Amino acid sequence: MFKAKVLIKRRATILDPQGKAVEIGAKHLGLKNIKNTRIDKYIEFSVDTMDKKSAVDEVNDYCKKLLANPIMEDFEFTVEEVK
Amino acid sequence: MFKAKVLIKRRATILDPQGKAVEIGAKHLGLKNIKNTRIDKYIEFSVDTMDKKSAVDEVNDYCKKLLANPIMEDFEFTVEEVK
Repeated sequence: MFKAKVLIKRRATILDPQGKAVEIGAKHLGLKNIKNTRIDKYIEFSVDTMDKKSAVDEVNDYCKKLLANPIMEDFEFTVEEVK
Repeated sequence: MFKAKVLIKRRATILDPQGKAVEIGAKHLGLKNIKNTRIDKYIEFSVDTMDKKSAVDEVNDYCKKLLANPIMEDFEFTVEEVK
């Protein structure tokens, strides 16, 4: 059994409207020093396989085919064995 | 100037419907070993202050008042100086 941790980020050149929106809220609350808020996705799951190679392949497939949008997002992940 | 990295997670006892949904998609794609997918938020921003104490206070305020839902989410963050 492996534990995968995936971070999916919009590319830096692409506007993040959700981040912009909460930042405007921050200004209204008096938090004036907050800049460049970007809200991305952090995804955790288990991979129920015996060897690391096939776990990594499955995580990679999951990211490419479902979790990340290849047009505007990049992903990175770690895979660690758990007992 | 400081860089803050915030991770906001739903509490483990609270169902994550978005994670459940993509996991059903994974099964349809033949990724049969993926289990317990949880989709959380990873947020990055800059804090334009001179001292770390006030940066940490501002990040904490931002999380408590805007970014995290205190009813069902927990947050953790790191604050690092950048040149």
